[in-house]
Amino acid sequence: MTQLAAPPHPFDVAVELDSFDAGRFHGHTDPAYANMVGPFGGITAATLLRAVMQHPECLGEPLSLTVNFAGPIADGPYDVSAYPTRTNRATQHWNVELTQDGAVTTTATAVFGVRRQTWSSTEITPPTAPAADSIAPQSFPDAIAWARNYDIRFVEGSIPAPEDGTAGEQPNSTTTLWVRDTPPRPLDFPALTALCDVFYPRVFLRLGRYLPAGTISLTVYFHADSASIAAQSDNAVLGTARTQRFGNGYFDQSAEIWGRDGALLATTHQLVYFKA
Amino acid sequence: MTQLAAPPHPFDVAVELDSFDAGRFHGHTDPAYANMVGPFGGITAATLLRAVMQHPECLGEPLSLTVNFAGPIADGPYDVSAYPTRTNRATQHWNVELTQDGAVTTTATAVFGVRRQTWSSTEITPPTAPAADSIAPQSFPDAIAWARNYDIRFVEGSIPAPEDGTAGEQPNSTTTLWVRDTPPRPLDFPALTALCDVFYPRVFLRLGRYLPAGTISLTVYFHADSASIAAQSDNAVLGTARTQRFGNGYFDQSAEIWGRDGALLATTHQLVYFKA
Repeated sequence: MTQLAAPPHPFDVAVELDSFDAGRFHGHTDPAYANMVGPFGGITAATLLRAVMQHPECLGEPLSLTVNFAGPIADGPYDVSAYPTRTNRATQHWNVELTQDGAVTTTATAVFGVRRQTWSSTEITPPTAPAADSIAPQSFPDAIAWARNYDIRFVEGSIPAPEDGTAGEQPNSTTTLWVRDTPPRPLDFPALTALCDVFYPRVFLRLGRYLPAGTISLTVYFHADSASIAAQSDNAVLGTARTQRFGNGYFDQSAEIWGRDGALLATTHQLVYFKA
Repeated sequence: MTQLAAPPHPFDVAVELDSFDAGRFHGHTDPAYANMVGPFGGITAATLLRAVMQHPECLGEPLSLTVNFAGPIADGPYDVSAYPTRTNRATQHWNVELTQDGAVTTTATAVFGVRRQTWSSTEITPPTAPAADSIAPQSFPDAIAWARNYDIRFVEGSIPAPEDGTAGEQPNSTTTLWVRDTPPRPLDFPALTALCDVFYPRVFLRLGRYLPAGTISLTVYFHADSASIAAQSDNAVLGTARTQRFGNGYFDQSAEIWGRDGALLATTHQLVYFKA
């Protein structure tokens, strides 16, 4: 009797890297995770984290990741290189680069490390939200292909729909949402990384319309260890994001990703350019 | 008649770099900015930003900076290399590295860019604080040499003094303070960068005692342009910092640096290790 293997999850297809040399990988953009221009930033960030995790010298778990979106990624193949800049007893530092035809499109640094039990305290609290099941999922405009791989249910600050005449300027940039991969997929570090970029540009919400905007630099601090991430299974996580300052063509965004039982899985920050 | 030039400010001495090749510099640790182990992280971050600013190919102003403290910096000379990974029309991306005897101690990425006037909005508000002049400056323990170069006046969350028996566990990690260089020095991007690291480790405040702790990764988002920074002159700025989560040997810190007239100069985030 033939056992048919389940097809891989679209996320795993999108972040797949083939190692062809020590710390060097071939990858390929995936139309399923395309954004309006180039790939969804979250899938690129997840791919670069995965390059480190696939490296034979990788030690420990992700602690922090910074991804700089230096230039557009064209549809098609790309190369990723990852190398440890320094390995300590408990932490390891990495440089990562994504190139196409020899031109750098994306750079990243990552810190991995060993976690051990210590005194702990979560000082902030998750946003108040009704159960995910009680909110209808929201579909995104067709041009945002990647959003079809996520079940997104807005608690606050839904994506504006200017064509409905319902959108307009808002005084507050906060979006809170439930999100999980669709089809459901157990959470891991790369998937959590991608979720950190799932919030649409805050300037859309403030101005009530779409305009050119893109992440320049994204940082993720991983608070969850691998056991805590595994405990999330394929449940929706609760995310909340807001901007502190918009001005001179740029804005920041800070966000939190919360898991079951009030576990703060990640805090994440980004700087975004916009044209208004 | 002989005109004696004013001696350079200690900050400028500490961040001085001598270029010896394209994008390559010699520097030297400065005992005036020493921390308990190695230099003050803020002075290292400022030095790496300055390497980019001194590079003949540098375009625009700092937008974001991420510094990874990979290993200890020994007292003595060091080398810094900085190179642009990609230059666009409006933004430029950089990799920076600090080495000693060929070993990497610190890596950084920076994004520089052109600012242009756009719609702007500061969504957060500065913390409530009495005037800097109404608060006495606080001296730090002698082992923290770098703090003698700053006039620091705590509004909230002063550095614990366990020897006085006044410290103890606190439920909140927030520190708010007025700070300026001493002697006074007009603000610029490197000095603002250093100020982003002026908050002592939040775990000291929560646990009411000193313990081993050090920044692993520091990110700064520069909201101020050079005109706004120049307008600060040598006035004290208002900073506030707090942690979102402590656990498994690490914690994050997010902070804001506010200038005159409610100008948000920078938001900054870091991940810190601790032993408790």
